Amino acid sequence: MKQNANWGAWMKQDGFDLLIKGATVVSPDATALCDFGISGGRIATIGPDLVHPADEILDATGLLALPGGVDTHCHIEQVSGAGLLNADTFESATRSAAMGGTTTVVSFAAQHPGHRMRKVVDDYAALARKGAVIDHAFHMIVAETGNGNLAEDIPALIAEGHRSIKIFTTYDKVRQDDKSILDLMAAARRAGALVCIHAENDGLIRHETERLLAEGKTGPRHHAASHPRAAEIEAIDRMCRFAEFTGARVMIFHVSTAEGAAIIRNAQARGVAVLAETCPHYLFMDESVLDREDPARFLCSPPQRTPQDQEALWQAMEDGTITLVTSDHAPYRMDETGKFANGFDAPFNRIANGMPGLETRLPLMFDAMVTKGRMGLDAFAALTATAPAAAFGLDTKGRLAPGFDADITLWDPERRRVYRRDDLNDNVGYNPYEGVEVTGLPVTVLSRGTPVVRDGDYCGTPGAGRWLPMSRP
Amino acid sequence: MKQNANWGAWMKQDGFDLLIKGATVVSPDATALCDFGISGGRIATIGPDLVHPADEILDATGLLALPGGVDTHCHIEQVSGAGLLNADTFESATRSAAMGGTTTVVSFAAQHPGHRMRKVVDDYAALARKGAVIDHAFHMIVAETGNGNLAEDIPALIAEGHRSIKIFTTYDKVRQDDKSILDLMAAARRAGALVCIHAENDGLIRHETERLLAEGKTGPRHHAASHPRAAEIEAIDRMCRFAEFTGARVMIFHVSTAEGAAIIRNAQARGVAVLAETCPHYLFMDESVLDREDPARFLCSPPQRTPQDQEALWQAMEDGTITLVTSDHAPYRMDETGKFANGFDAPFNRIANGMPGLETRLPLMFDAMVTKGRMGLDAFAALTATAPAAAFGLDTKGRLAPGFDADITLWDPERRRVYRRDDLNDNVGYNPYEGVEVTGLPVTVLSRGTPVVRDGDYCGTPGAGRWLPMSRP
Amino acid sequence: MKQNANWGAWMKQDGFDLLIKGATVVSPDATALCDFGISGGRIATIGPDLVHPADEILDATGLLALPGGVDTHCHIEQVSGAGLLNADTFESATRSAAMGGTTTVVSFAAQHPGHRMRKVVDDYAALARKGAVIDHAFHMIVAETGNGNLAEDIPALIAEGHRSIKIFTTYDKVRQDDKSILDLMAAARRAGALVCIHAENDGLIRHETERLLAEGKTGPRHHAASHPRAAEIEAIDRMCRFAEFTGARVMIFHVSTAEGAAIIRNAQARGVAVLAETCPHYLFMDESVLDREDPARFLCSPPQRTPQDQEALWQAMEDGTITLVTSDHAPYRMDETGKFANGFDAPFNRIANGMPGLETRLPLMFDAMVTKGRMGLDAFAALTATAPAAAFGLDTKGRLAPGFDADITLWDPERRRVYRRDDLNDNVGYNPYEGVEVTGLPVTVLSRGTPVVRDGDYCGTPGAGRWLPMSRP
Amino acid sequence: MKQNANWGAWMKQDGFDLLIKGATVVSPDATALCDFGISGGRIATIGPDLVHPADEILDATGLLALPGGVDTHCHIEQVSGAGLLNADTFESATRSAAMGGTTTVVSFAAQHPGHRMRKVVDDYAALARKGAVIDHAFHMIVAETGNGNLAEDIPALIAEGHRSIKIFTTYDKVRQDDKSILDLMAAARRAGALVCIHAENDGLIRHETERLLAEGKTGPRHHAASHPRAAEIEAIDRMCRFAEFTGARVMIFHVSTAEGAAIIRNAQARGVAVLAETCPHYLFMDESVLDREDPARFLCSPPQRTPQDQEALWQAMEDGTITLVTSDHAPYRMDETGKFANGFDAPFNRIANGMPGLETRLPLMFDAMVTKGRMGLDAFAALTATAPAAAFGLDTKGRLAPGFDADITLWDPERRRVYRRDDLNDNVGYNPYEGVEVTGLPVTVLSRGTPVVRDGDYCGTPGAGRWLPMSRP
Repeated sequence: MKQNANWGAWMKQDGFDLLIKGATVVSPDATALCDFGISGGRIATIGPDLVHPADEILDATGLLALPGGVDTHCHIEQVSGAGLLNADTFESATRSAAMGGTTTVVSFAAQHPGHRMRKVVDDYAALARKGAVIDHAFHMIVAETGNGNLAEDIPALIAEGHRSIKIFTTYDKVRQDDKSILDLMAAARRAGALVCIHAENDGLIRHETERLLAEGKTGPRHHAASHPRAAEIEAIDRMCRFAEFTGARVMIFHVSTAEGAAIIRNAQARGVAVLAETCPHYLFMDESVLDREDPARFLCSPPQRTPQDQEALWQAMEDGTITLVTSDHAPYRMDETGKFANGFDAPFNRIANGMPGLETRLPLMFDAMVTKGRMGLDAFAALTATAPAAAFGLDTKGRLAPGFDADITLWDPERRRVYRRDDLNDNVGYNPYEGVEVTGLPVTVLSRGTPVVRDGDYCGTPGAGRWLPMSRP
Repeated sequence: MKQNANWGAWMKQDGFDLLIKGATVVSPDATALCDFGISGGRIATIGPDLVHPADEILDATGLLALPGGVDTHCHIEQVSGAGLLNADTFESATRSAAMGGTTTVVSFAAQHPGHRMRKVVDDYAALARKGAVIDHAFHMIVAETGNGNLAEDIPALIAEGHRSIKIFTTYDKVRQDDKSILDLMAAARRAGALVCIHAENDGLIRHETERLLAEGKTGPRHHAASHPRAAEIEAIDRMCRFAEFTGARVMIFHVSTAEGAAIIRNAQARGVAVLAETCPHYLFMDESVLDREDPARFLCSPPQRTPQDQEALWQAMEDGTITLVTSDHAPYRMDETGKFANGFDAPFNRIANGMPGLETRLPLMFDAMVTKGRMGLDAFAALTATAPAAAFGLDTKGRLAPGFDADITLWDPERRRVYRRDDLNDNVGYNPYEGVEVTGLPVTVLSRGTPVVRDGDYCGTPGAGRWLPMSRP
Repeated sequence: MKQNANWGAWMKQDGFDLLIKGATVVSPDATALCDFGISGGRIATIGPDLVHPADEILDATGLLALPGGVDTHCHIEQVSGAGLLNADTFESATRSAAMGGTTTVVSFAAQHPGHRMRKVVDDYAALARKGAVIDHAFHMIVAETGNGNLAEDIPALIAEGHRSIKIFTTYDKVRQDDKSILDLMAAARRAGALVCIHAENDGLIRHETERLLAEGKTGPRHHAASHPRAAEIEAIDRMCRFAEFTGARVMIFHVSTAEGAAIIRNAQARGVAVLAETCPHYLFMDESVLDREDPARFLCSPPQRTPQDQEALWQAMEDGTITLVTSDHAPYRMDETGKFANGFDAPFNRIANGMPGLETRLPLMFDAMVTKGRMGLDAFAALTATAPAAAFGLDTKGRLAPGFDADITLWDPERRRVYRRDDLNDNVGYNPYEGVEVTGLPVTVLSRGTPVVRDGDYCGTPGAGRWLPMSRP
Repeated sequence: MKQNANWGAWMKQDGFDLLIKGATVVSPDATALCDFGISGGRIATIGPDLVHPADEILDATGLLALPGGVDTHCHIEQVSGAGLLNADTFESATRSAAMGGTTTVVSFAAQHPGHRMRKVVDDYAALARKGAVIDHAFHMIVAETGNGNLAEDIPALIAEGHRSIKIFTTYDKVRQDDKSILDLMAAARRAGALVCIHAENDGLIRHETERLLAEGKTGPRHHAASHPRAAEIEAIDRMCRFAEFTGARVMIFHVSTAEGAAIIRNAQARGVAVLAETCPHYLFMDESVLDREDPARFLCSPPQRTPQDQEALWQAMEDGTITLVTSDHAPYRMDETGKFANGFDAPFNRIANGMPGLETRLPLMFDAMVTKGRMGLDAFAALTATAPAAAFGLDTKGRLAPGFDADITLWDPERRRVYRRDDLNDNVGYNPYEGVEVTGLPVTVLSRGTPVVRDGDYCGTPGAGRWLPMSRP
């Protein structure tokens, strides 16, 4: 066990900075009222009727207190391989996140061939420092292992706390071949980093894309067929075997198929260190969304699947195979600056993939898990905050207990909302869940004890968010 | 969500009954010091440097605060089918439990043919009321479904909070056939009870026992061969299929084999509501113990297996297949009143099965999981307290948070002990872990805020323990 | 290898007894014409344009020559546990078999409690000697293992060539419990017998039957629900595990479910000596038959399942999991002497199970496998003749090659027939395949070189069939 | 069914060309004596004491008659990507094959980048026409799909009867990426060809090779570590998924691992058209051979594995997962012209892979399967002749029945031989089974009725072998 912590370093002796009164917390009585005393940005004391003095008091009567959301998969202010700038800056993205109850994001420092990873990370960190409203960390997208990257920059950056490497098995320019993936996994294991994987078989996607285009099936509706479920299944299986072989700790991003989940379950059972996440658009959308108007809104990779897959993903969350639900927020506007940078009549394979999700992730999951009762409040907190924080070594996040950061989201479990066409706080311009009604919404959100949302109104400060080093597992 | 709880009912307004100072709790700093304010038997407030007045103050400097152990599988003051009285009374058993850091036990109200379940439970409850030092609940062992039992007594008892039925697939007199098991599962599902199962195939055990006895292999060493692994594997598979068919929520007791764990994992993955426990003697002993002196000490069913099985059970705990570790405390003295009631030269199948374990469960698991680092402190608390409490609807137990019962065990993670031949506080007369060294031991144990062990000395009060109704899942 | 055979003992030196001219046999040219010279009841010579003298010549121009069918699962002249006499004598049953192209049957010498197996077999053999038109062997249905049966009669009968034991896991009076099944398997392994199993979980059937009757669902349509697929799946799994444990060679009779086939596949892959059969009514009927008029006609156990199961069974035949297709001919008339012995308004569980199938098995399979092309001529011969003969050690049957018995069925692959209400040659009075059209029918059938069907006309002789000892595997 | 064959085209009317007298064939008597009448290179008549006139009579008393071996995986007169000429010409290779009882070979027309497949096949066919002693067909190794190859040459060659494409997932210069493999599978399905696959993950091999070389582990002993079992397992799984996706019929070459066999078994069970072969060096050698003197002798890819894998491969043959045993004859001399073309101190990855096996395949398998009794004579013929012929559409090969080619191997089941250092009839210069004793050897071998080996003496004629078109499945 670690020793010699210094509790006093952050604990104010003469009273709390902030006292939250009368929040409802999980307890044997289910709605027990509790106070939180906050000092130095951390939770100091939890209990009813706290009598300490405090600089400020926040009345939380009627609200649930839950750990602020931790969204470990979001694309923010990132230049893609195709040169497109996504629609969100750190400011807009973290504003949207905060308004959805999320207090920590992990986004991508994306290398492109020819660049050194050190500079990529430094440049990206500068953007975050300037704009981020809430705390954050980065995954390193590795496009090039040679040229000093794997030999120098990556191990050094890992040692500094950038303990997450993201790789792609498909997509030109960023795709790593099997040899490079194995080299990266071996390096990650040695240095103590997690390897996150977009796992789809590149050959299957290219084979099907070529076929569809040759058959004149170029519209966005055909995107799903171009990313067949076999592509995900094969790649997940291969990545699990590579993790087993190298001993690396890996995370499969955005699992979308029943078979993919089953492969991960089997790998976990034989001791492979593989974690898995899924996203709301795989749980709440199926392939039929591509039959709606403006299907480009829903394009993502892997694509939405079947209702049977949705059920299998829920099952996988219930049995502990999938332990994280993230947004995969990928903000492209429905215009020439985003989805249609290659023209409004671009074939499906030249339309940008992804949709916004930072702000809707928690309300959608709360509604399904808590309001509708599928898994309960504990599981909601675990999948959306505790487990993501733990997976990436964000040690101060994801729990409501003394000593943890006072990242607290106060929920009104009764408040309802019907999502509208363009009602989010990001820069994307559409809400893919238009028309969906949710019950249970965040009302007040604290980042290290400071409100970033108060009574539903945004009050964040760009640059207030801090970078979080990931701890070694 | 449940409504209208009355926090004030137990919260003392003018200060704490007890204030625990400076305990070390799990936090980002790993050894953060924290205080616990206790009122009305519950945890009221958690935080550093609490300044409330308190009737009593307990200095916990240098100690870890963990939820008191919840041991949901122990045989106490129970008459077996063979008429043997086990060695422990509620007083002796719960004294031993408390000395081992456990604050809740679930033991067995065992029906025998001809008796009404209502009376069985009433009589057993009277014994508990009189002797139990700590809180407790009961499983109902059902031996007879007819004669008003399944029609009247059992549903009524379930409704009163006895929401656990225990059945055996083997053992004369208590064994239920498949039809009765299905009837019980269907009834349990309707009434909202968990069905706990001793799962071993009766035919295989009898076939092998007959063969071994015919070959003159009568010594206790042959017990293991008479309970082949195939017996457990088959029965677990059958019980999972029955649970799937009836929709009942079931728990497989004392899983001992790799294959058994794998079957449960697969059942969970296809949505079967099956939970699983294992016990320290399957994790820390293997079949070679029967080659030691006095092998009758180690006789249990299912028997200890191989080192490969041990590893598979750890894996199953790590991947969430097995979520409980219990003692299966089964106290028989090594004399004519216990193990050898049928004579010192009785064949293996006439020697009582079981061994003491209430007191050693937590130190053995702490040593392996925390001291040696296999799974960590969170997982230790989950497997030995949080999950057992949740599985059986013991809503006020298993967590350290405001509103929960102040069942707190303060651990010294550095304290060492080598177990001796007869050094436990039960009435059994031997310690099966003689010679084993553990690091990390409970020092002070609170039951609803009242010390039952203080600085290693027992200070419990027979009759102070309360019966806990199990809540409907 | 075996030595010292005496080919001359059956080979006539001065010409053939019978010469079949111009039959079409499987060859690289697919329709090569070939002659068969037959001596002493065996095939002596195969080749085109044979010039030997012969006592008789049979012109087979335009016909396919195939091994006579071997039907290793049929109920003939058998008294059931309920005292019902089935509708067929050896004479009527083997007449029907021969008319359908089958030249060997294996039926059941069925013990009932209180009888010695020796006498059961002797009495049954006398019936066969008197009536059987074609060659035959017996399974021993064991109802009682005590009383000298397992100690004396059964091993002796096995040694004499009755190397097949049939057991039931369900049905009152004949049901064996797990212990007895294990004892029988162990005995069978020692003595060299195959254990054939009707595998359905008795508890599940009784639990569901009781429920259905209590709900007033008593009509024959409810039979299927009373034998849920879980019952077969569970019992097949258990029997495979018992076979694995005892080392016995077993055969699972009438597999009806996809999961059952999958369990057998897995058992075979880990080296368990388990064989499997299915029957035409599982391949060509599904559960919807019970919605037709007079559903009692189609009652059988296990019941017909879903189209998905049908496809899975075909798959299992293609991949070698299931290697036999038999009829499970169970002849009960649709009157008080048969199906309705307990009255025309008897509840589903008191209506006799089974349907006729000896005569339709081969045409149905030929039509599906050869005419419609699903598996081909080789596979047809393998599943219906070669593999059944090999499985039961009927060494002289199932192949067309010199030295084998001249059990030859000459097929007209073009002949068509639509089955009618009552057009079979057994005594049952209805054809469950009424209305079905098949293409490809047997025309002439030889039993050891002697025609029993000639140009579609029956010409068999009761008593001409011989009992076949089964060889030790 | 095919129609209108012309049996008379090859059947001589006035007697046989050759009459084999008194051979022992598989029959109910196990050692029945039988004659074979041969006309026009085909088997005309089978029976005892044939009385037809014949140009020649061959006395086979005491010998077993079996179909000549069909070896569908051998490298003959092939230029490798590295420019090495292998040691055998068609003449030497087919001489060696014949001396080992094999009468048909399928070898490789190997394309290299820049060449057109049409010319590759034409050139290779010319070599075979000139030298081959026995009948033969070719696999096309595809190295380049563009440049008119996949668009023109390959479909045309398939239509002409070259219905087997061989691809590699590893090895520089011939390795196909996933996209090309899928394109080839799709093309093969459309045109009716089988896709044969060397399945090992290229990345794993390169990752491990780089690691080993970096650690100074350059000796031939380290070859096995550079081809880890995970490489085969992953690639087999991927190839099965690709076959499932494209609907192509595929064959996995040289399965060496238990897991690989299990993956294939599962794929077959879900209806994937995947066949599998293994080779004697995986059945009779394990990884310990690389610890012997001159380990380069035993280098092959995939490498030999463990005794557990050997057992799993036997099991897979028994349950029908693996249906072919071939030699993978790959003839490199132990000198600078072969194994050591890159020098005697070349690192393991620059030593040619492969070993001779054409001549030892059948005796090794006969000894294990028949003499030692593991699977029996029928299974021996099936695995080494019938199934390989059927898999590749070699319709006239692999069976002893009228109309089939008179490719007959007469075996002496009692003859023994201990293999010596250099006692084979190929040009390789060493026998990898030196010291191994086999019982059961071929004595006389007929190719289309003409002896190529007589009483153990070679009597073949270069150029007498004919090319066999493969039929469409």
